Amino acid sequence: MSGYRTLTEQEAVEYARNIPNLFPEDARLVSREIGDGNLNYVFHIKDERPSGKSVIFKQALPYVRVIGDSWPLTLERARIESEALILEDQLCPSSVPKVYHHDTELALIVMEDLSVYQIMRKGLVEKKRYPNFPKQIGTFLARTLFLTSDLAMSPLEKKQKAASFTNPELCNITENFVFTYPFHDHPSNAYNPLIANVVQRIWNNNELKLEIAKLKEGFMTRGQALLHGDLHTGSIMVTEEDTKVIDPEFAYYGPMGFDIGAVIANLLLNYAAHEGHTPDLQERESYQTYLLETIMEIWNVFENEFRALWNEKAQEPYAKVPGYQDSYLQNILQDTAGYAGCKMMRRVIGLAHVSDLESITDPKLRAKGETLALTIGQELVLQRKTMTSIKDIVNVVVAATQN
Amino acid sequence: MSGYRTLTEQEAVEYARNIPNLFPEDARLVSREIGDGNLNYVFHIKDERPSGKSVIFKQALPYVRVIGDSWPLTLERARIESEALILEDQLCPSSVPKVYHHDTELALIVMEDLSVYQIMRKGLVEKKRYPNFPKQIGTFLARTLFLTSDLAMSPLEKKQKAASFTNPELCNITENFVFTYPFHDHPSNAYNPLIANVVQRIWNNNELKLEIAKLKEGFMTRGQALLHGDLHTGSIMVTEEDTKVIDPEFAYYGPMGFDIGAVIANLLLNYAAHEGHTPDLQERESYQTYLLETIMEIWNVFENEFRALWNEKAQEPYAKVPGYQDSYLQNILQDTAGYAGCKMMRRVIGLAHVSDLESITDPKLRAKGETLALTIGQELVLQRKTMTSIKDIVNVVVAATQN
Repeated sequence: MSGYRTLTEQEAVEYARNIPNLFPEDARLVSREIGDGNLNYVFHIKDERPSGKSVIFKQALPYVRVIGDSWPLTLERARIESEALILEDQLCPSSVPKVYHHDTELALIVMEDLSVYQIMRKGLVEKKRYPNFPKQIGTFLARTLFLTSDLAMSPLEKKQKAASFTNPELCNITENFVFTYPFHDHPSNAYNPLIANVVQRIWNNNELKLEIAKLKEGFMTRGQALLHGDLHTGSIMVTEEDTKVIDPEFAYYGPMGFDIGAVIANLLLNYAAHEGHTPDLQERESYQTYLLETIMEIWNVFENEFRALWNEKAQEPYAKVPGYQDSYLQNILQDTAGYAGCKMMRRVIGLAHVSDLESITDPKLRAKGETLALTIGQELVLQRKTMTSIKDIVNVVVAATQN
Repeated sequence: MSGYRTLTEQEAVEYARNIPNLFPEDARLVSREIGDGNLNYVFHIKDERPSGKSVIFKQALPYVRVIGDSWPLTLERARIESEALILEDQLCPSSVPKVYHHDTELALIVMEDLSVYQIMRKGLVEKKRYPNFPKQIGTFLARTLFLTSDLAMSPLEKKQKAASFTNPELCNITENFVFTYPFHDHPSNAYNPLIANVVQRIWNNNELKLEIAKLKEGFMTRGQALLHGDLHTGSIMVTEEDTKVIDPEFAYYGPMGFDIGAVIANLLLNYAAHEGHTPDLQERESYQTYLLETIMEIWNVFENEFRALWNEKAQEPYAKVPGYQDSYLQNILQDTAGYAGCKMMRRVIGLAHVSDLESITDPKLRAKGETLALTIGQELVLQRKTMTSIKDIVNVVVAATQN
């Protein structure tokens, strides 16, 4: 990595000019840094002429600034991200931004500009609805997870792929900030003082912590498929018609339910936030019902597509043994519930919160949403092993809301 | 690997002379190839002078000759084997032959000569008893498995280690010859025609195949610890006092129960073989009782040592959560039973048999032992999820023997 240096806006323009066929020779390129500078630089580079093309430069920084001090973070994540994007695009065409160019030395990815898309989390806070989203994300999940697993791949190729997506530093962020710190009295935690007693009960709940320990162990050891690894609604960009998944720098071989659980957790965090955001009961219930229907549809699309891929493409000689497909899917469902639960709780107790809840300015109203999120999170973890259908997840949410 | 060439006996001697401090300068070295030439050359190199030292040269061949035709097999396994031996010796001193030298280009390992030891399988056929074996192998299992897992290691280092022990070709041999071919009507199978109906019932048993599918999936995805990967009684060398584990070329990160199950399966194959070998009931029962006591003691040593290591050395923040250690060990026990079952069945139906059974010359007597092995194997797989103690495994064996 001796050639690594961070680019300036002007250097990014010059770099763009030297990528063959990216822009026409007479392009009038302007560059603007639009990232938050925490983990990456993000440059928006545009040909200013009418109908001019634009691209995104994403350059990884060799550190993270999150807890005050900076800590070093591998530039290798840019390689992981670009390789994951390229693979995901092959497995589920147009589901992710196109990668035009990748520079390992600079930890730089040049990719499709998705400026016309909005970060989904923002749209959900505004109570927007995305009718195509369940179909698109459910298909993305089924295709990327099934097609990178031992069910579909040669076991030789799969193991090489798992090795090449070894991603210890980013996995360790998840191990600490999703599975560990939020469930202990750790200095990185940051929660609303009004829910201190609820948080304390979680820290004292040994039954819950035992189940989280098992889920963490699964995250650390069960290399089922290539995961996105951080599939919250801030990693999903949407228009009314379309969905794109971005930022797979946490990609690694892990348990399938972790990705599905991330999507569901973040829809449920938004669900819980409307307890504070949307005082009108009818309006709130209407949007919460939309979110629950979305969750059910995502799972149903995922399950149907996964079963269809299994029936058509499975290479595993045991694939046709009666009951194996059902048992496999039930395990994914139970993992999904468990990982969704962990992710909901960590976004309330831990370091990294979600704007769905943070944007509720009244701390009392926010505490209401946060408490609901924690209740749902706990029940998803504790009840997961009895679940046999997506309705079991929805029932947990409905029961928690009514209490 | 451009510099790879197979050594002759004379070249091995010359090579040995050039390893610093291996032999004295005035040594009178003689070399003898003692391998079966199927996967490796094995040279025994000895200083002929009185009290002269001796060493073993093990050189991997770039192919296997098993099913008539040769098929290519990575020389990389010599690197895996030497690194595993070195690591196992660190984790459990003197449990494996010392590695004196390793040459990646020649796929060569120079190691401690264990000529005074006997292959354990041979000793068991002769009804020898090894009073220290349970303590030694149980400790080996506990230390190598616990200390390479996320329980004990930094998760960053563990993932790098798992990547460096990526071993797709040798894992694939297990996936095919342990988990797949024996449970299907595959041309590589070779079984006693007198048990054809028992084999047919196994092939038609969908409940059994579903459970084997799950165990295979666990083998392929659950990177809990660095396994030996092929820990049968032919990979264990013994004297009356001591035990050495050899040949870890199948080493990779997998489920802990696979290694423990391999040891137990091979003791139980020997148990079943004495149905044919030892017509005298009292003599047979006495030795079979010894074998079952050995199995219980192995597990008990393993469990006690594993718990002690956990209590002293666990790095995992959840290690002290009440119930986690018990739940973790129960899962290992259930995996142990399941993998032991698969391994017993494959040694009767599949390509590679064991001399314990093969040395029974009367096919009818052999069929008796084989049928018992298959019955035990099936019940271990089917009943594993209800097991909570090593006695549950022993009870399966006793019940199958009495029927």
